Amino acid sequence: MLTESDWPAPPGTTHLDSQLGFAIRRWCAPLLGLEPHASAESYLETRAALGPSEVTRRLLTATGIGDYLVETGHKGDAILGVEEMAKVSGQAAHEVVRLESVMEDVARAGVTAEELPGRFRALLAERTVTAVGVKSIIAYRYGFDFDPERPTDDETVRAAGTWLRDAEATGTYRVSDPVLLRFALWTGVDRGLPIQLHAGYGDADVELHRCDPLLLTRFIKNVRPHGVDLLLLHCYPYQRGAGYLAQIFPHVYFDVGLGVNYTGARSDALIAESLELAPFSKVLFSSDAWGPPELHYLGALLWRRGMRRALGRWVDDGDWHPDEAARVVRLTGRDNARRVYGLTEAR
Amino acid sequence: MLTESDWPAPPGTTHLDSQLGFAIRRWCAPLLGLEPHASAESYLETRAALGPSEVTRRLLTATGIGDYLVETGHKGDAILGVEEMAKVSGQAAHEVVRLESVMEDVARAGVTAEELPGRFRALLAERTVTAVGVKSIIAYRYGFDFDPERPTDDETVRAAGTWLRDAEATGTYRVSDPVLLRFALWTGVDRGLPIQLHAGYGDADVELHRCDPLLLTRFIKNVRPHGVDLLLLHCYPYQRGAGYLAQIFPHVYFDVGLGVNYTGARSDALIAESLELAPFSKVLFSSDAWGPPELHYLGALLWRRGMRRALGRWVDDGDWHPDEAARVVRLTGRDNARRVYGLTEAR
Amino acid sequence: MLTESDWPAPPGTTHLDSQLGFAIRRWCAPLLGLEPHASAESYLETRAALGPSEVTRRLLTATGIGDYLVETGHKGDAILGVEEMAKVSGQAAHEVVRLESVMEDVARAGVTAEELPGRFRALLAERTVTAVGVKSIIAYRYGFDFDPERPTDDETVRAAGTWLRDAEATGTYRVSDPVLLRFALWTGVDRGLPIQLHAGYGDADVELHRCDPLLLTRFIKNVRPHGVDLLLLHCYPYQRGAGYLAQIFPHVYFDVGLGVNYTGARSDALIAESLELAPFSKVLFSSDAWGPPELHYLGALLWRRGMRRALGRWVDDGDWHPDEAARVVRLTGRDNARRVYGLTEAR
Repeated sequence: MLTESDWPAPPGTTHLDSQLGFAIRRWCAPLLGLEPHASAESYLETRAALGPSEVTRRLLTATGIGDYLVETGHKGDAILGVEEMAKVSGQAAHEVVRLESVMEDVARAGVTAEELPGRFRALLAERTVTAVGVKSIIAYRYGFDFDPERPTDDETVRAAGTWLRDAEATGTYRVSDPVLLRFALWTGVDRGLPIQLHAGYGDADVELHRCDPLLLTRFIKNVRPHGVDLLLLHCYPYQRGAGYLAQIFPHVYFDVGLGVNYTGARSDALIAESLELAPFSKVLFSSDAWGPPELHYLGALLWRRGMRRALGRWVDDGDWHPDEAARVVRLTGRDNARRVYGLTEAR
Repeated sequence: MLTESDWPAPPGTTHLDSQLGFAIRRWCAPLLGLEPHASAESYLETRAALGPSEVTRRLLTATGIGDYLVETGHKGDAILGVEEMAKVSGQAAHEVVRLESVMEDVARAGVTAEELPGRFRALLAERTVTAVGVKSIIAYRYGFDFDPERPTDDETVRAAGTWLRDAEATGTYRVSDPVLLRFALWTGVDRGLPIQLHAGYGDADVELHRCDPLLLTRFIKNVRPHGVDLLLLHCYPYQRGAGYLAQIFPHVYFDVGLGVNYTGARSDALIAESLELAPFSKVLFSSDAWGPPELHYLGALLWRRGMRRALGRWVDDGDWHPDEAARVVRLTGRDNARRVYGLTEAR
Repeated sequence: MLTESDWPAPPGTTHLDSQLGFAIRRWCAPLLGLEPHASAESYLETRAALGPSEVTRRLLTATGIGDYLVETGHKGDAILGVEEMAKVSGQAAHEVVRLESVMEDVARAGVTAEELPGRFRALLAERTVTAVGVKSIIAYRYGFDFDPERPTDDETVRAAGTWLRDAEATGTYRVSDPVLLRFALWTGVDRGLPIQLHAGYGDADVELHRCDPLLLTRFIKNVRPHGVDLLLLHCYPYQRGAGYLAQIFPHVYFDVGLGVNYTGARSDALIAESLELAPFSKVLFSSDAWGPPELHYLGALLWRRGMRRALGRWVDDGDWHPDEAARVVRLTGRDNARRVYGLTEAR
């Protein structure tokens, strides 16, 4: 789970010979009582001896994260849920609901094509009562080069008919039809919560060039009058384009999570690139951690270090005042998320 | 006017919390008699107290720019004209004529579709008698994914008919039809002056991925036999592709203005990226300043600093001889522009 | 031959005023007995006085390269062949066969459309008896936006018919039909040797945005079950996307050669970008040197320096252990190539 690949590494090689593998052995090993740069073997042995609960506790309580935003739509039964995250980390946790998972649940429960739109709206409302946002993975399932208009009801019902027939025949309820994905997304717009869109790097299914967030420009324009915020998640290697969108459109925000973890020692370059065009009120921290708790710890550690290096240099050079640097760290590391997701100040 | 956005910042935020905002408060404040990093409030107060003429005089006379190339096609009555720029700055100023503005003037003056091609050619000739170049904003109005061939007269007249009918009906004379934009561009080629093409970042209207200068490759090839130089303006974040075009094609030049201003403390990274594939005779300084005189001053200051940092490092590392570095600064900062635009040495 | 341009530099300028030109005068001049930064004139004079054999000997024996992989499909009679490279350098040399050259040889020898598929398979088998890999230049001849499926025999024969008629009429045997290029590529897959695909920068013929290796994603997926390795060569400026592909797909490898030579003093930035997402078992050194022996020497020198700078910084910062850095240099500089191309350890 320390690669986005779906396949084993070629014979004689290992996915751990990577920036992420090196960073985990460097930075996470000490939390397990090992020396920095511990070998992969001793890391895995010690990890197994401590057991997953203790490893998770050590890493999650060391992140310095005050509010976890948790999206459980991908193999939700294999990872910690929202309440468990709060309990293990000792901090607040908030839910983000994956639109496609809700639609797949609607289908799995049994529904006709004609009923699907209404049932999706109803289940989404129910699932998001306490949620702080919704998420779309249209980038993985199709790409961002989709028709930016809302589909008509007729189109949606027709697409639902085909999908449901196939799903019942195969037993696989995986929505990838662009009309249904657009319907889910626009229903998310109607729901009014901030919408996360996974962009750029982060899955073996994507065609990465079709996940360039700039391809969303027309959709972003169409959403603007609805007063809903769009959060472009991760964006690698298209972070500069994401920064452009965040400058131009008042309702666009972005982060460079995921890429930060996977580029390890190079993550400072990525973080610096995220601080070009976008106003500082539009850039957010994220880890995109999923699965191993190492990714939560490392995502926070590398992001803090990258910010300190970028902003520290600008302060040293006299470009920025130290107070400004501290304020930008607070904005991007905490206050922007609180404002956009409506998190309460006190916990 | 310190953002390319068309909308106000979200409540609780400000466009000034950005690299550009920080850079203005850092670098321009001292010219207004303030401390570096003056607050936005005190900056705006002092600026208002000094008045626009005095602020403009202070900033423009401090740029160190010897020749201003001024394009007045965008809200030309709201900004200083060519002669005013020369007078206020105490330096030479030269005109660049925006092709689309000339076409819109032709239409506004009353013309039939059949007359439009000839009238455009005539007015362009008249307007460019003393101009040093023309400019196309086809990137904003359509994108670079246009048909790279010259349109036929029939196509042009047909497109003109539709546009003129619409313009007369709505009172809005804004040319965005790709046939008319291509006609204007090819007429610019016939005129023989250097042609500026705004590329990449710089307007809320663009779809940025459709402004990648690489999309111009076929058009560039078609123009080559005509002996006309093409200047790709700004190009962010596609400066590496622009450098490739500038190496391959003898008539292609580029700059990274605009991006330099808007990335502030990060502009040194952008400037360094502009010095990769392109021969140094093909890279030009520009500020893309429009509106606030801060952008003229800051564009020059940040560009000089970024050049000094990039070239200074290469000299320190022993890669470049100091004389070479000085020569490249002269080329990119002055001599290339003088050669391409035919500016006279003496003023 | 120190530019990828097909045209002379504009009057008053020279292709040598470039990162590559400066790097050659800085780094190669001492091997010719000149001072670093020798003038272009004295460099060319001394080079001519020494003669091409002596210059080639001096530069090739100084590269530190132990195994040369030589592809002679482009003007093969004007450059050193595989055996000559081994002899002059005193090291091992191995052959890579260009698919398109084999097809053009089949056509030039006289063949019917119906015979072409079989004759191509036969000649490819013959030519690759001792080869370590094949190479496709579909990026130059068409672009990576080709149909990722294998063409049918009927399609191939039909396309061959058109091509052969044209070639016989014009006397120019240059294959650029996408069906024939795909046929050659899939026949290369059947052959089972590692396949090099020139990607990104490196020819005046390309439309660079159509050479983004991400456009190969579907083709890469189609090839995976065949167990054949794909090597994306050079990739500039798309090295980050190439790193993504190398992480996701077990059979994808890449390098940033060519760009390293042409960006000279900036090559360290490019090399650092190549060390982000990809596992270190998937990144390879290359020079893409063709023609002047300076490119072999400089490609090796700049790559070593760029690796030392990137990895040295990570070691200094405590991110990487020095032993890890040494191991990654060995992998990317030697062992990965030996493993993928099946080079024997002992020479």
